[in-house]
Amino acid sequence: MFIAKVIGNVVATQKNEKFCGMKLLLIQPYISKDGALQISGSSVVAVDSVGAGVGECVLFTQGSSARLTPATKDAPVDAVIVGIVDVVEVEGKVLEKP
Amino acid sequence: MFIAKVIGNVVATQKNEKFCGMKLLLIQPYISKDGALQISGSSVVAVDSVGAGVGECVLFTQGSSARLTPATKDAPVDAVIVGIVDVVEVEGKVLEKP
Amino acid sequence: MFIAKVIGNVVATQKNEKFCGMKLLLIQPYISKDGALQISGSSVVAVDSVGAGVGECVLFTQGSSARLTPATKDAPVDAVIVGIVDVVEVEGKVLEKP
Amino acid sequence: MFIAKVIGNVVATQKNEKFCGMKLLLIQPYISKDGALQISGSSVVAVDSVGAGVGECVLFTQGSSARLTPATKDAPVDAVIVGIVDVVEVEGKVLEKP
Amino acid sequence: MFIAKVIGNVVATQKNEKFCGMKLLLIQPYISKDGALQISGSSVVAVDSVGAGVGECVLFTQGSSARLTPATKDAPVDAVIVGIVDVVEVEGKVLEKP
Repeated sequence: MFIAKVIGNVVATQKNEKFCGMKLLLIQPYISKDGALQISGSSVVAVDSVGAGVGECVLFTQGSSARLTPATKDAPVDAVIVGIVDVVEVEGKVLEKP
Repeated sequence: MFIAKVIGNVVATQKNEKFCGMKLLLIQPYISKDGALQISGSSVVAVDSVGAGVGECVLFTQGSSARLTPATKDAPVDAVIVGIVDVVEVEGKVLEKP
Repeated sequence: MFIAKVIGNVVATQKNEKFCGMKLLLIQPYISKDGALQISGSSVVAVDSVGAGVGECVLFTQGSSARLTPATKDAPVDAVIVGIVDVVEVEGKVLEKP
Repeated sequence: MFIAKVIGNVVATQKNEKFCGMKLLLIQPYISKDGALQISGSSVVAVDSVGAGVGECVLFTQGSSARLTPATKDAPVDAVIVGIVDVVEVEGKVLEKP
Repeated sequence: MFIAKVIGNVVATQKNEKFCGMKLLLIQPYISKDGALQISGSSVVAVDSVGAGVGECVLFTQGSSARLTPATKDAPVDAVIVGIVDVVEVEGKVLEKP
């Protein structure tokens, strides 16, 4: 899994029927580097399965495992938010969330 | 999932029989960066499952989840278009589609 | 899926028994960029499932979906050629094949 | 699999129910280069399945295989620690662990 | 699949029980470039399923397909060596093995 910040949302009217009712969030992955959380890699569109909102720091899962939440079961989905991050601690120091 | 623009199409006559009748589109992934949608990564060949056409902004899924649409069931496919994007909103601002 | 050119082949005598009889081709992925097909990424070893040969432009599939052809069923294979590309058209222009 | 060093941990209270009781560790992948183990790629959040702790050198698995440990069965998890590395030997030389 | 050279091995005593008896090899991927096999990407830890040893040129498979050998069945493994490479031929020329 990776840590990310929810930065926006995506609306699609014409879509696969399994996407009806799903909340699609745009997220920006972050990594731990030099004692801080820093932007890393490309923004991703993930399904929300935990009630996340814009501005929150989240944990997301990719690949086939993204289908193993109640919100995404059997859907053609490859990224899902599985938790809202409270604390990231590196070598005894709590990192500031982005 | 990632956002992409449909930029072309691919024709293959000699192919796996599961590909018969599939529409193969060439898509260019985009990410959100500096408040705009920008090209990111390599062009991909994806199966269309929602009636997308050249010039449209779409959402696509990769990996085993790409087989979970009616158009791609049990086929040796690793990328599928699952929605046509109407709006991408980042921090309250609607981004211009590519 | 990605587009690639078949550039060579690989021979392995001591191997997993599921590989017996498989044709292993070395392929070089190409992407569409600036109105042309250009080399992108690393060469890959893929199983041929459509009768492709050196010099041909092909379509290949990766990951678990690579096992969904008659040639690769239940085999420890993560890349397979699924079609021979006739035409790649971008914004109304047919690209020259590599 | 890749080698990594456990550098911290992640706490998430609001999360998918399958994550309850899981220990989420932040790990930094390492590769062998020029006769030493060097940092490579982005930090990853992985579930611990072997009793690993901060500062230890571990082996981790990604993708659908990450669900094949007792700690991660059927969970929406894409990275898991599967072993604690004692020795990495390259061309007869034991590399110093990070 | 990719071509790699076996450069070392990894020992882990405390590990997932499915790893008991597995031989873990450190491998360095190679690609074909400019008429030669060249180092590409990060070193990987792969399970040996064909009796490979340090210094040999091998073929390896990643992802869920890595579980489809007798040595790795149902194990939390994402990389496995599936063959020992005898010859890599590019455009009629046999490449020197690394």
